[in-house]
Amino acid sequence: MKRIAVLTSGGDAPGMNAAVRAVVRKAISEGMEAYGINRGYAGMVEGDIFPLDAKAVSNTLSFGGTFLQSARYPEFATLEGQMKGIEQLKAKGIEGVVVVGGDGSYHGAMRLTEHGFPAVGVPGTIDNDIAGTDYTIGFDTAINTATDALDKIRDTSFSHGRTFVVEVMGRNAGDIALWAGIAAGADQIIIPEEEYDINEVVRKVREGYEKKGKHRHIIVLAEGVMHAEKFVELMKEAGDTSDLRATNLGHILRGGAPTPRDRVLASWMGAHAVELLKEGRGGLAVGIHNEQLVESPILGTAEEGALFSLSDEGKIIVNNPHKARLDLAQLNRDIAH
Amino acid sequence: MKRIAVLTSGGDAPGMNAAVRAVVRKAISEGMEAYGINRGYAGMVEGDIFPLDAKAVSNTLSFGGTFLQSARYPEFATLEGQMKGIEQLKAKGIEGVVVVGGDGSYHGAMRLTEHGFPAVGVPGTIDNDIAGTDYTIGFDTAINTATDALDKIRDTSFSHGRTFVVEVMGRNAGDIALWAGIAAGADQIIIPEEEYDINEVVRKVREGYEKKGKHRHIIVLAEGVMHAEKFVELMKEAGDTSDLRATNLGHILRGGAPTPRDRVLASWMGAHAVELLKEGRGGLAVGIHNEQLVESPILGTAEEGALFSLSDEGKIIVNNPHKARLDLAQLNRDIAH
Amino acid sequence: MKRIAVLTSGGDAPGMNAAVRAVVRKAISEGMEAYGINRGYAGMVEGDIFPLDAKAVSNTLSFGGTFLQSARYPEFATLEGQMKGIEQLKAKGIEGVVVVGGDGSYHGAMRLTEHGFPAVGVPGTIDNDIAGTDYTIGFDTAINTATDALDKIRDTSFSHGRTFVVEVMGRNAGDIALWAGIAAGADQIIIPEEEYDINEVVRKVREGYEKKGKHRHIIVLAEGVMHAEKFVELMKEAGDTSDLRATNLGHILRGGAPTPRDRVLASWMGAHAVELLKEGRGGLAVGIHNEQLVESPILGTAEEGALFSLSDEGKIIVNNPHKARLDLAQLNRDIAH
Amino acid sequence: MKRIAVLTSGGDAPGMNAAVRAVVRKAISEGMEAYGINRGYAGMVEGDIFPLDAKAVSNTLSFGGTFLQSARYPEFATLEGQMKGIEQLKAKGIEGVVVVGGDGSYHGAMRLTEHGFPAVGVPGTIDNDIAGTDYTIGFDTAINTATDALDKIRDTSFSHGRTFVVEVMGRNAGDIALWAGIAAGADQIIIPEEEYDINEVVRKVREGYEKKGKHRHIIVLAEGVMHAEKFVELMKEAGDTSDLRATNLGHILRGGAPTPRDRVLASWMGAHAVELLKEGRGGLAVGIHNEQLVESPILGTAEEGALFSLSDEGKIIVNNPHKARLDLAQLNRDIAH
Repeated sequence: MKRIAVLTSGGDAPGMNAAVRAVVRKAISEGMEAYGINRGYAGMVEGDIFPLDAKAVSNTLSFGGTFLQSARYPEFATLEGQMKGIEQLKAKGIEGVVVVGGDGSYHGAMRLTEHGFPAVGVPGTIDNDIAGTDYTIGFDTAINTATDALDKIRDTSFSHGRTFVVEVMGRNAGDIALWAGIAAGADQIIIPEEEYDINEVVRKVREGYEKKGKHRHIIVLAEGVMHAEKFVELMKEAGDTSDLRATNLGHILRGGAPTPRDRVLASWMGAHAVELLKEGRGGLAVGIHNEQLVESPILGTAEEGALFSLSDEGKIIVNNPHKARLDLAQLNRDIAH
Repeated sequence: MKRIAVLTSGGDAPGMNAAVRAVVRKAISEGMEAYGINRGYAGMVEGDIFPLDAKAVSNTLSFGGTFLQSARYPEFATLEGQMKGIEQLKAKGIEGVVVVGGDGSYHGAMRLTEHGFPAVGVPGTIDNDIAGTDYTIGFDTAINTATDALDKIRDTSFSHGRTFVVEVMGRNAGDIALWAGIAAGADQIIIPEEEYDINEVVRKVREGYEKKGKHRHIIVLAEGVMHAEKFVELMKEAGDTSDLRATNLGHILRGGAPTPRDRVLASWMGAHAVELLKEGRGGLAVGIHNEQLVESPILGTAEEGALFSLSDEGKIIVNNPHKARLDLAQLNRDIAH
Repeated sequence: MKRIAVLTSGGDAPGMNAAVRAVVRKAISEGMEAYGINRGYAGMVEGDIFPLDAKAVSNTLSFGGTFLQSARYPEFATLEGQMKGIEQLKAKGIEGVVVVGGDGSYHGAMRLTEHGFPAVGVPGTIDNDIAGTDYTIGFDTAINTATDALDKIRDTSFSHGRTFVVEVMGRNAGDIALWAGIAAGADQIIIPEEEYDINEVVRKVREGYEKKGKHRHIIVLAEGVMHAEKFVELMKEAGDTSDLRATNLGHILRGGAPTPRDRVLASWMGAHAVELLKEGRGGLAVGIHNEQLVESPILGTAEEGALFSLSDEGKIIVNNPHKARLDLAQLNRDIAH
Repeated sequence: MKRIAVLTSGGDAPGMNAAVRAVVRKAISEGMEAYGINRGYAGMVEGDIFPLDAKAVSNTLSFGGTFLQSARYPEFATLEGQMKGIEQLKAKGIEGVVVVGGDGSYHGAMRLTEHGFPAVGVPGTIDNDIAGTDYTIGFDTAINTATDALDKIRDTSFSHGRTFVVEVMGRNAGDIALWAGIAAGADQIIIPEEEYDINEVVRKVREGYEKKGKHRHIIVLAEGVMHAEKFVELMKEAGDTSDLRATNLGHILRGGAPTPRDRVLASWMGAHAVELLKEGRGGLAVGIHNEQLVESPILGTAEEGALFSLSDEGKIIVNNPHKARLDLAQLNRDIAH
């Protein structure tokens, strides 16, 4: 392979720039040429594709977001869109593509694989919810940002004797809530992977103030459960009488300078994606498992360890979905008293 | 004066601990004893008052919130509450009190002054909206936190080509919005002290994307104008077609390790409050004007430079309300293109 | 076991407080009592041992250093010191001890094990150089602090077209240099685990400025190789003519609020140490391997996976020393151009 | 005036980019054209001068250093260099120049003024030691970075019961030492503007540990006094027996994302420099005094408030040198016990 391209897709995540930089630099090290694609699959289909040299990715390592930009592009779900995209890549002499992104982005990579165009996925999403890897780019920065915000809220919670329900991102996965919650000494953590009993939640709040002499109470809530304001309502209905506030950390979790961990692992996976393409191996998703680089087929059977299978009707089956760390949920119950 | 006390009241603000520490340490330096009062005026009335030595305030300087805690206590508005509070102080041999807090807290200090009990106010609120000082404790930390969050949101705004309306605290004053907005390169800043035209707001958004080739648009909105979600609705009604999001920085602005500026100026004002009490001078509010320590009468006539006057009916008149920096608003219009 | 104690020893590391907090809280959860020991083995021998309840460890999670303090105490290397320490523990009814620390601290735990007193080690050192674990408490915070400092130095390096040799901690292990160096986009990383050629170092500096049009050059140097000032001298002798500066990040790497990763993993390992003691299992060191909790015998044969063996003459043999990530060293060479 | 240029000179300071951005954007707002000059006076003389539009300065606001780079250039001290520089500017149609920098840079601006070329100075140096302004760009960021590092060192100081002598930048001015020292709760602050007695320094260290039960001792030392290692030697000679360490914060103080205060005030002063040039007023240095914009003649008599006068022999006389805040030095003595 002589020329490859790289795109970022889906929600932006800190460290995506580090991955793109590594793809470009590693490609050059291996004697290949690197191209960037603007705005994900939208730019691919529109032909917004341009050469990147080593210097073009200088000073990107420490910046959040993605300088290649990202965009939602439902049109890529159509066969027409996919063929148009591949045509644009081939017109530029591009023989393989690295896709940095989350779930939806991987679906695009799966379609490229289906059509025989070599694609390698690199997991980039703050939610840490991608199959085939212990770790996704942006997760470590997101838990740093969330913990920092929770530390701040704790100041006010203590100063005023208030109960805060703090919503953090995580539609399907409670990982951000769990890690940031434990890190910030949250009194309770509510995640989509576990049942909760609102009466028990309220009982713990009361017990904290009354029996344990606490001056504050912080509940971290993953957005996948419900919104913080709704949760506060449920707590009130269940009899909570503390000075309750709902707050949503919102979009700040997506941005910011990536942590060293995000920068290093993104660089490592980005460079590995290039190695795979250089060997002519497409249709793979890179990951980190047990602190080592691994790769999984994007499309195939569950037995092969593939991320996705297609049903007879053409539906996407996720073979090995991300699992929550229920041991961490238990850890917090053991030490948050 | 041989024994003084200190309390924090109103919304917590980073740097309050530095002020309390300086009151305690300076009092000891001057041969006096220092007492702390828990939970503001509530603790005063309940007699939750206890001695503090130099060591008790070690390791408080760098922490947000207030270790003395704060509380709303509308009961202190009654004559009965005030007399009870003074009684509690006198019972402990306390001859003067330093009140660290915002507007409402100053009203309490005014009542103590009215009854002849020596009180000195130290301005502590992130909003920077207190008369008699250019600067309030916590403001510098709040604009750091807000700017940091805006820098993060800018990453996502650019990566996705989105328009963000970001709400920041500031009920009466646009200072946080102005400083953080300029610092973060906000495209527009909407504050309570200035009129705005929603059609003009929307026009600028469109012009940015269409004529100026911008990939993002950030509007910083002071909460005193309206909530971000409401503002987004108005923008849509006025024809905005960009990918619009509302977000509220919320409670994170109150917390966090105070900046050096907040720590130093809080220490300086706290120590000065003790000097005034030592000289037997109560009924004053400390401030910083033109980078120097100043003090103003808390209660008196406007001509005397007093913060508050009482009308014949006993209503509180604010003599010299905080003014917005409209020159900074103009600065942003000049350079945010 | 009904009563256990915890101490911190060796160089302080961010996250030690989180480990101590987890030991105390988990012990209480399991129906045991927890004691703290001040200043490591020194406090053990002197009997500076006191009960800790759940509240005593509140508000320690986010603080750097160790509130139990640490101290060098060579006297614990003597049999007399060891027996005195065990005597003090038994006098307080303590049946097991958790030791949070680095290499030297583990030697102490080995002696306790040798004498049959149940000890469990928890790896706490910023250097990441302890056998039996992929990860040591404080390492993640240290690479964050180092990367942050390197990002700052890069600003000046670029602004002035200067070459910086930046020394970071790491006597035996280049891990901090590698992770922070890759994260900060260092041009070269020099670690004790790899040979280097000073002429090649100087050639790369020249090539960067002359052929690659770089405006800066940053070399990260692990202290185990030599000091930065010495390295700068060698470079000058080898003909470097760039505007060269040596700087040492020094002691700031040891401090600071621990990152969420350090807080969570420290909590997890601390709690696990208590589980082992509860089951009556001493003589073990906790670790994290492949993102799971593991434990290794502290003293035994290499075949058993023990950390240390004793030679016939009583010398300590380290069975499975920490290995550098030479793949990361190669990664940087591939992408730092 | 239709076309102006901007350069940065001297040591880089966080916020310089904000000043340059404001110069460019404000010039465009006023219907003028803006040019950038690379590497300060060196680039001016070499003709490294190029147009900057509004977009070229996007995304510079939050970055440390100076994207225009800086350089030492002693050749500008010669008449020949000065005339060559002016020639280059005129060749590009440039009618005025904004110089962002410290002392040495102002000397260059003085020479331009002497030769009748309109120059306006904007004070950019972390040291805060420029006449004609209460505030220099970069100072606020530097005290934030220094305080953050001191907070980290305090962790280790406490954990190990050590005494640290921490050197911070400041050749002539103790401002960084004073502000960061007070902010971090330093036990002693040694600055060039005050005498110190080494025996008294040592006595306070001993008293802290022995009488006051302190577990740590931190001395902040301005580099203008001497280097930390030398100071530690003097302390030992004077009989200090504590566990003493010297550390130098070094170059990290120059870098990093500017604080909001640095960004806002830099923007404000940069924009004002353009207003002055637009009115045809050169030979001035902008400053902030009493929180308002001010300007002083660069060259003239002391009575006129000029920054510099020239003696009959042509020597530069600094008319109104920066003064240390000895009141802040006293404040620390009052509360650091």
